[in-house]
Amino acid sequence: MSPGKPIKCIAAVAYEAGKPLTVEEITVDAPKEHEVRIKVEYTAVCHTDAYTLSGMDPEGAFPSILGHEGAGIVESVGDKVTNVKPGDHVIALYTAECKECKFCTSNKTNLCSSVRATQGKGVMPDGTSRFHNAKGEKLLHFMGCSTFSQYTVVADVSVVAVTPEAPLEKICLLGCGVTTGYGAAVKTADVQKGDTVAVFGAGTVGLSVVQGAKARGCSKIIVVDINNQKKQWAQDFGATDFVNPKTDLKEGQSIVDKLVEITDGGCDFTFDCTGNTSVMRDALEACHKGWGQSIIIGVAAAGQEISTRPFQLVTGRVWKGSAFGGIKGRSDMDGLISDYRDGKLKVDEFVTHERPFTDINAAFEDLHHGDCLRTVLDLSK
Amino acid sequence: MSPGKPIKCIAAVAYEAGKPLTVEEITVDAPKEHEVRIKVEYTAVCHTDAYTLSGMDPEGAFPSILGHEGAGIVESVGDKVTNVKPGDHVIALYTAECKECKFCTSNKTNLCSSVRATQGKGVMPDGTSRFHNAKGEKLLHFMGCSTFSQYTVVADVSVVAVTPEAPLEKICLLGCGVTTGYGAAVKTADVQKGDTVAVFGAGTVGLSVVQGAKARGCSKIIVVDINNQKKQWAQDFGATDFVNPKTDLKEGQSIVDKLVEITDGGCDFTFDCTGNTSVMRDALEACHKGWGQSIIIGVAAAGQEISTRPFQLVTGRVWKGSAFGGIKGRSDMDGLISDYRDGKLKVDEFVTHERPFTDINAAFEDLHHGDCLRTVLDLSK
Repeated sequence: MSPGKPIKCIAAVAYEAGKPLTVEEITVDAPKEHEVRIKVEYTAVCHTDAYTLSGMDPEGAFPSILGHEGAGIVESVGDKVTNVKPGDHVIALYTAECKECKFCTSNKTNLCSSVRATQGKGVMPDGTSRFHNAKGEKLLHFMGCSTFSQYTVVADVSVVAVTPEAPLEKICLLGCGVTTGYGAAVKTADVQKGDTVAVFGAGTVGLSVVQGAKARGCSKIIVVDINNQKKQWAQDFGATDFVNPKTDLKEGQSIVDKLVEITDGGCDFTFDCTGNTSVMRDALEACHKGWGQSIIIGVAAAGQEISTRPFQLVTGRVWKGSAFGGIKGRSDMDGLISDYRDGKLKVDEFVTHERPFTDINAAFEDLHHGDCLRTVLDLSK
Repeated sequence: MSPGKPIKCIAAVAYEAGKPLTVEEITVDAPKEHEVRIKVEYTAVCHTDAYTLSGMDPEGAFPSILGHEGAGIVESVGDKVTNVKPGDHVIALYTAECKECKFCTSNKTNLCSSVRATQGKGVMPDGTSRFHNAKGEKLLHFMGCSTFSQYTVVADVSVVAVTPEAPLEKICLLGCGVTTGYGAAVKTADVQKGDTVAVFGAGTVGLSVVQGAKARGCSKIIVVDINNQKKQWAQDFGATDFVNPKTDLKEGQSIVDKLVEITDGGCDFTFDCTGNTSVMRDALEACHKGWGQSIIIGVAAAGQEISTRPFQLVTGRVWKGSAFGGIKGRSDMDGLISDYRDGKLKVDEFVTHERPFTDINAAFEDLHHGDCLRTVLDLSK
């Protein structure tokens, strides 16, 4: 440990949109007041990292250190940090929880506003970065986490301590995908026993929605995906039906028609986990008249809009969204870890690939393959 | 009374889109099984009648007898009618309540499906009409009510008995506008004490939303309308603020900006009572991040769609709709009448014009004038 001093370590730097990451030595400054320096042990690669690296994210800024699905051990803390201490096992939180702002105290949302403005700009709350490269060039933070570095600095509101008995190489996934899907089902939608559910997109998020629906005893859990390779996973995680809109529809039948047919009128809840705005519309319109709710989880490309006839809403459908599954990272993480340790929440099963950190660019390639849910990188290698 | 026999009476027939109604003698057949013949005493004219008459409603069919905001006295009933009897004071319900279908028994919606299909086609549940003109030509029903006739026949699920102590010339308005707005606030949105609310459109529906928000003790009730004549009414019904987007915005300021400014971050609830899809978008985007809900009440023109960036929903706003205020006409009407008689729900104040039935075409003109909320027609004249 080097409290108060800069640390040199290896990071994967995103210098330019559309280019591979550069694995190189950088310097990580000591945490300032209300900041925590974490030795990142494991990180996964999520589609949001790939989206920003692709350059399609209009708010993506470079050079930066991406990564937001990571777990590690606190190396040192700055002044006034009370929620974690050196040695704590922790998960980085891209959705902070300060417990003090208008949002946190509302008990209506998990969208804490405490560090939102600076996080969006790629800097710490004081407006500066803790990262620079060998040339002395400043490197931006990303989503308040920047887990693609052996050491990172985050705001104290952006980190939660977890039991050291939970394996970091698995629970790093609770930093984003698994929590986002599971929470969308059990918290945002609050699905109930007997409900009918359709999930569009069978990636880590979608399959975690399936888990939530299964945990609650939903009667139909229909996974919609254009890749038949996902069918087995859908079943393994609890789906009762799998529909591939490319191959499983009758002539002239839309996916909406099909879902209305399977559920005798429409779904009680649908979830978009694709980010495709056309799919989001289908998901809404496949809801049951009178009460069906559609929850948007996927992140759409810049400038894309959702549309429908207002009649869809006037006749009782509800359109809403979910970010980080509506989960308050510091208050609710213990419960998720317990569910995981009790066998109620699958996490290990999402780790389809493991690689040394230095192979991070290969991990981005993995994402494009149907046989990959998550690649976990070991930052010690 | 002429139970079992046809009745000749005066009706206002809509023969063609875009043309005035023809006031003439028609014949109203006796009610069949599960049907009720009502002597209509008073009816108001609502924008939906005007919309259908204009020809813009693609589902509008002619010739027909419009009108759906009416009250009267049961003249006779067909077999198997148990919920009303001759002599009962009643309100016609364009949103039926059978208490038996999947929707009614769900307790999640007021959108009864029992007579929906035939009602949409302008016929009674057995597929036929009870109206014909002097030439023997069949005249269609409208919205299950057809109150622009001295006598009408409705399904038993489409009528509710009310206390004879409530004045029919006023409570006819509970058949649509007042109930739609008030219910949207207190039932669909379930606004609470201290909430901030914006209401787009200060007609009968919008001002009734205002009443609901006031009854619940909302802290800010902002009425948005492009007609400054509505300002006084807005205040009379309980609005705390009035914003005219044409005259009350600073340069470069949008109505969304203005509402976010007034409410320090956005409204807890917004209501569209305009039917304008661009206003619907503003209403959604003026909601507070994290929890704001926007309720669409207005009926959009055919083919029009609503749009927004999905980010609006992912960051916690909820888009929903309301039909007939979420009110179950047979179960909930008593409560509304009580609220009215106890002085908690203003109804009389909406009756700005009264006319003999034979002046019905002038009543359609009244709708276009800023000084008119509702014209009530006396069918005895």
